[in-house]
Amino acid sequence: MNKTQLMKLAFELASKGGFKTFPNPNVGAIIYKDGKIIGKGYHRFFGDHHAEIHALNEARENAKDSIMFVTLEPCSHYGKTPPCVDAIIKAGVKKVFIAMKDPNPLVSGNGIKRLRSENIEVETGVLESRAKKFYQDYSSRFSRKNSYVALKYAMTLDGKIATSTGDAKWISSEKSRQWVHKLRTQFDGILVGVNTVFRDNPELTSHGRSKNPVRIIIDPYLIIPLNSKVIKDENATVIIHSNENKTKKIKQIQDYNKYLLYIKSQNGLIDFKNIVEELRRISIFSILIEGGGLTAWLALKSGIVNEIITFVSPKIIGGKDAITPVEGEGIRKISKAIKTKVTRFEKMGEDILIISKVIKNV
Amino acid sequence: MNKTQLMKLAFELASKGGFKTFPNPNVGAIIYKDGKIIGKGYHRFFGDHHAEIHALNEARENAKDSIMFVTLEPCSHYGKTPPCVDAIIKAGVKKVFIAMKDPNPLVSGNGIKRLRSENIEVETGVLESRAKKFYQDYSSRFSRKNSYVALKYAMTLDGKIATSTGDAKWISSEKSRQWVHKLRTQFDGILVGVNTVFRDNPELTSHGRSKNPVRIIIDPYLIIPLNSKVIKDENATVIIHSNENKTKKIKQIQDYNKYLLYIKSQNGLIDFKNIVEELRRISIFSILIEGGGLTAWLALKSGIVNEIITFVSPKIIGGKDAITPVEGEGIRKISKAIKTKVTRFEKMGEDILIISKVIKNV
Repeated sequence: MNKTQLMKLAFELASKGGFKTFPNPNVGAIIYKDGKIIGKGYHRFFGDHHAEIHALNEARENAKDSIMFVTLEPCSHYGKTPPCVDAIIKAGVKKVFIAMKDPNPLVSGNGIKRLRSENIEVETGVLESRAKKFYQDYSSRFSRKNSYVALKYAMTLDGKIATSTGDAKWISSEKSRQWVHKLRTQFDGILVGVNTVFRDNPELTSHGRSKNPVRIIIDPYLIIPLNSKVIKDENATVIIHSNENKTKKIKQIQDYNKYLLYIKSQNGLIDFKNIVEELRRISIFSILIEGGGLTAWLALKSGIVNEIITFVSPKIIGGKDAITPVEGEGIRKISKAIKTKVTRFEKMGEDILIISKVIKNV
Repeated sequence: MNKTQLMKLAFELASKGGFKTFPNPNVGAIIYKDGKIIGKGYHRFFGDHHAEIHALNEARENAKDSIMFVTLEPCSHYGKTPPCVDAIIKAGVKKVFIAMKDPNPLVSGNGIKRLRSENIEVETGVLESRAKKFYQDYSSRFSRKNSYVALKYAMTLDGKIATSTGDAKWISSEKSRQWVHKLRTQFDGILVGVNTVFRDNPELTSHGRSKNPVRIIIDPYLIIPLNSKVIKDENATVIIHSNENKTKKIKQIQDYNKYLLYIKSQNGLIDFKNIVEELRRISIFSILIEGGGLTAWLALKSGIVNEIITFVSPKIIGGKDAITPVEGEGIRKISKAIKTKVTRFEKMGEDILIISKVIKNV
């Protein structure tokens, strides 16, 4: 088999990942030695091993002096597992054919550089035009210089997202909720604070609509219950924490194939600018924040929110202790408020949907 | 002069009240004796003496055995002052010509009955067709079986009517605020809780637009500051209280020509059903409630609110301790929420205006 045929096979493998790897790209890898394929692998779902690791695991010690065909540049950064390039180097692969460099400017070229620095031969551009088409959607996400962040909430006509007892089911109408399921498919990630997981135990999926975005949970102290839907179900979840000690909890979460992302905190709060930056490294460029009040406040305060999607449901629940969409410390003077501009408003079922762009931050 | 000429004169006097008596009707009175007019009077502004009292004050002891011409049936209920019929009886008037019975079904006919029971001759229907036209607007307000109550507030996109420090200037845009000034002219009364007076010291007028509605302040313990705009300015104000002891404060408020309305409270709270009923007695049939959070909650809870007028301003202020449009105890389950139906929504300046009808109460 020639290199084109082998790379074609790698693409066929890559395709098997389908929507499940979202927002990661589909990647396939073949390990070839002495005229035989000795390892095959593909990235099966977000949070799974990368394609190269699966292929190396199949080839085992035979991988020494083998040739690898991989549809996208191997990663050189730490995610859930050590970088793929490290595994390739360790296995003793002698040459790597790569269809296309990673379009993510944060990592592009680094994997190739690393392999070459270890005297592994690298040839790029095998089936490159096919690769460009195959990774079109993935590449297009990097055309934005900044990540795109939207904040979404459904509140009552009197500005509450939950009653004083924490009940939030359901504020908005059936039609609005279905629209939100569809909306979610347009984002790489859906972000909530761990308090929302405690209060609502949400699923945060598109409910069967094509690809599911990754659920991102901000949980500085790693207090998330292991029986939460976002941990137990098979969809992808990233837990962002700043806990260096809870190794048992970390192990338990990893056993559910969930992704842990450590980011340093200050006074128990993780800066949203760092969150957005770290998420870019793992291919999450667009984020829909879905609560609660403190998370929304911290996100808005850090200046990373571009758009606010508000459902106003014509219900009144009252209550001095009811929960509002944006809480935290807040702003003391109306004149210093965060300003937005309404770009769209319409009736959605019984509710009013208001979409506005943030034009002046804190 | 004949009775028609004298009644015509009474109407001319009545007209002098103009918009200032609103929501009271314009009333004029003439006292005639021995071929001479010995007393003239008209209701000058809401909170002022009634026309009959002014005329009697002018006639003094000459009123004995005189004839009175009055454009509307004299009142028989206690308002700011004792009922006019009591003054007429006490003065010794022997005959009263009345153009029209009071169309207010709560009081209609009672004044006439009372006068006749004291052997005072009463003749109704002098210039009646003129009276019907003159009191057309006033009469039309009684065609409703129930009072009409709307709740209005302007909140930020995150559901706040003031910051945690109480700042509320300004939530809504200039255009929205001007629309509210116009809206006020369509109501007999504008109602707020005394806390709103403390926090905002509002004017609650139509800002020069034709008639000003009466300002109604719910103040169970009579704690309103005497230097509040609603006390000091010349527009009409009703203070609803349940304090039997603060006679000095009552006297001070009356010195500003403001109207005190005593309603019994329970645990320091005055039932809104009683408030609406008592306001009907003094010709206030339509009420615009403009805050704050506790007042809105008590009004909604009592089931007297028909319509909710919400401005959503595209600002975010956050804050766990910020003030929301409806507070108080609140409802514990979303399924038990007060339900409304959106009847109109539109862009108003930078804001979104949502009008909805209450369809299910607590």
